[in-house]
Amino acid sequence: MTELIDGNVHAANVRARTKVRAEAFAASHGRKPRLDVVIVGNHPASRAYVSTKTKMAHETAIDGRLIELPETVGKDALLAEIARLNADPAVDGILVQLPLPDHLDGQMMIDAIDPAKDVDGFHPMNVGKLFTAAKIDPEQMLIPCTPLGSLMMLVDTLGKGALSGRNAVVVGRSNIVGKPMAQLLLANDCTVTIAHSRTRDLPAVCRQADILVAAVGRPEMVKGDWIKPGAVVIDVGINRVATADGKSRIVGDVATAEAMGIASYITPVPGGVGKMTVACLLHNTVVAAEARARG
Amino acid sequence: MTELIDGNVHAANVRARTKVRAEAFAASHGRKPRLDVVIVGNHPASRAYVSTKTKMAHETAIDGRLIELPETVGKDALLAEIARLNADPAVDGILVQLPLPDHLDGQMMIDAIDPAKDVDGFHPMNVGKLFTAAKIDPEQMLIPCTPLGSLMMLVDTLGKGALSGRNAVVVGRSNIVGKPMAQLLLANDCTVTIAHSRTRDLPAVCRQADILVAAVGRPEMVKGDWIKPGAVVIDVGINRVATADGKSRIVGDVATAEAMGIASYITPVPGGVGKMTVACLLHNTVVAAEARARG
Ligand SMILES: NC(=O)c1ccc[n+]([C@@H]2O[C@H](COP(=O)([O-])OP(=O)(O)OC[C@H]3O[C@@H](n4cnc5c(N)ncnc54)[C@H](OP(=O)(O)O)[C@@H]3O)[C@@H](O)[C@H]2O)c1
Ligand SMILES: NC(=O)c1ccc[n+]([C@@H]2O[C@H](COP(=O)([O-])OP(=O)(O)OC[C@H]3O[C@@H](n4cnc5c(N)ncnc54)[C@H](OP(=O)(O)O)[C@@H]3O)[C@@H](O)[C@H]2O)c1
Repeated sequence: MTELIDGNVHAANVRARTKVRAEAFAASHGRKPRLDVVIVGNHPASRAYVSTKTKMAHETAIDGRLIELPETVGKDALLAEIARLNADPAVDGILVQLPLPDHLDGQMMIDAIDPAKDVDGFHPMNVGKLFTAAKIDPEQMLIPCTPLGSLMMLVDTLGKGALSGRNAVVVGRSNIVGKPMAQLLLANDCTVTIAHSRTRDLPAVCRQADILVAAVGRPEMVKGDWIKPGAVVIDVGINRVATADGKSRIVGDVATAEAMGIASYITPVPGGVGKMTVACLLHNTVVAAEARARG
Repeated sequence: MTELIDGNVHAANVRARTKVRAEAFAASHGRKPRLDVVIVGNHPASRAYVSTKTKMAHETAIDGRLIELPETVGKDALLAEIARLNADPAVDGILVQLPLPDHLDGQMMIDAIDPAKDVDGFHPMNVGKLFTAAKIDPEQMLIPCTPLGSLMMLVDTLGKGALSGRNAVVVGRSNIVGKPMAQLLLANDCTVTIAHSRTRDLPAVCRQADILVAAVGRPEMVKGDWIKPGAVVIDVGINRVATADGKSRIVGDVATAEAMGIASYITPVPGGVGKMTVACLLHNTVVAAEARARG
């Protein structure tokens, strides 16, 4: 029997704990933790993501604000906006929604964010800390939200320490998901393999995984017979595919129906990792607020 | 037939190229690139390493200086020394030799070094760049010396592009060797597995490697039958073991005699990776000098 890992439940737990901390912060500092989300242009998926982020922030006692800039905003104007947010003592978290229009360099914008306010955990300084820390502590560090959420679900599902010595395979090596995910699994004592588009015989590599993380962006690419019986599967993919009736639906990177009965646990799409990403963003905002208040 | 990868030859090539650049730098800037090596206390292996570093620097037209501090130097005095070197415009590279005595926090000292002068590539900012760069370029970045040297030998031996799609296994996950080595192999399109002390059935994991990197610190731990026939073996280990005559000798982490006839290529110990570490330090010093001069 394959059990679903319910992202809604896990995310609600993270948000509930975060809300308590946000309220305590407001009580001692006379203001809510604040998250400013910058969006450039009208990319529909990005618009949907950022409105979820600010809405969830409000429900979690965080002052979530949206800063909307036109598609045509110039490099210097965006850098100036980031500098303004860096300088504003009331802003705890800054998130520049990616992808940016082609004329803007995403990495340049990330590099411009004050690392102490970088709640996405993408700034090189935060990445460097993640990859060198003797102990990885999501209370002390700003860790990219999707891998952090995935790890939390794994630890909550399997129990603390249960990851040690397991073979983990991460398919995908992006800065946003694959690489930090591999590092979190390594820090939890998994033997970690990172696979990608150049990997030979990907099915065989995947079949070695006790813990399989798919972060590829290819609808249902991971087939049932790529999964070792009893493996735990984390499906990070969010892919919109056309349906017969001319509409569309969201599927993951794993052929979930095939995985049922083979995996021990799997995160569904939707309702899995995606929910945790936003919850961890709010968590990171409170961590940033608390750290900044400590000075 | 197993061929030895001669670290002396590869390192001499790197130093020769570095010397040309160092001399060109001196010609245009009126001073040599400068490397300041800070050593605390009397750890004999560390003393040997640092004197090799400054000696090799001189032979490579780099102004290598040794700053010797007593075993008892305090945290604040060491931080002040680092701040002085950061502020000195004539200093291009700063290296604080590790390990430090127990009362000093190595990571704190690394964090204090100006990232632009961090020729060991250990500062979180440089680590973050290494782990997020779209393209890894040892001419533009400060990459940890031992993994960089290991990668250079692999690329020179196998040919550019030959790493793509190969299974690489790195045994060891230190910040100095294992993790950055894994990242360099990943950036060269290997499918990368990181193993460590919690790994189950390490011999079986190693046997999957087309490229096997041992960075463990356990004399001759990797046996002949852990090596896939035809694999390329990079032996990073430097272990001093007692010999029957009451003296000692240096061996690697791989049982080299057993590997002969199984591996296609192997780096000997001594005379392998160790030689490249120092050569890459000098390379990094010139890269830092050139970058600082560009401003
Ligand atoms: N749940 C969430 O909240 C959340 C958050 C972020 C992303 N996502 C989703 O997660 C997925 C991955 O996102 P991302 O940002 O990491 O994507 P990305 O930057 O496009 O990276 C995709 C990775 O998959 C690899 N890949 C592509 N095709 C492959 C193939 N045929 N076989 C093996 N590997 C292949 C790529 O390899 P190369 O490096 O060799 O090109 C790359 O490393 C997407 O579906 C995205 O929508 C979800
Ligand atoms: N050639 C050079 O220039 C150069 C430069 C640096 C280092 N070295 C040498 O390279 C070796 C490693 O150095 P390091 O600084 O990376 O060492 P380190 O910080 O001590 O790390 C050793 C790594 O090996 C792992 N390990 C230990 N015992 C193991 C076992 N029985 N099975 C599997 N993995 C095991 C450890 O796993 P855990 O993380 O689970 O503890 C750890 O990740 C040493 O011999 C060192 O002298 C050479």
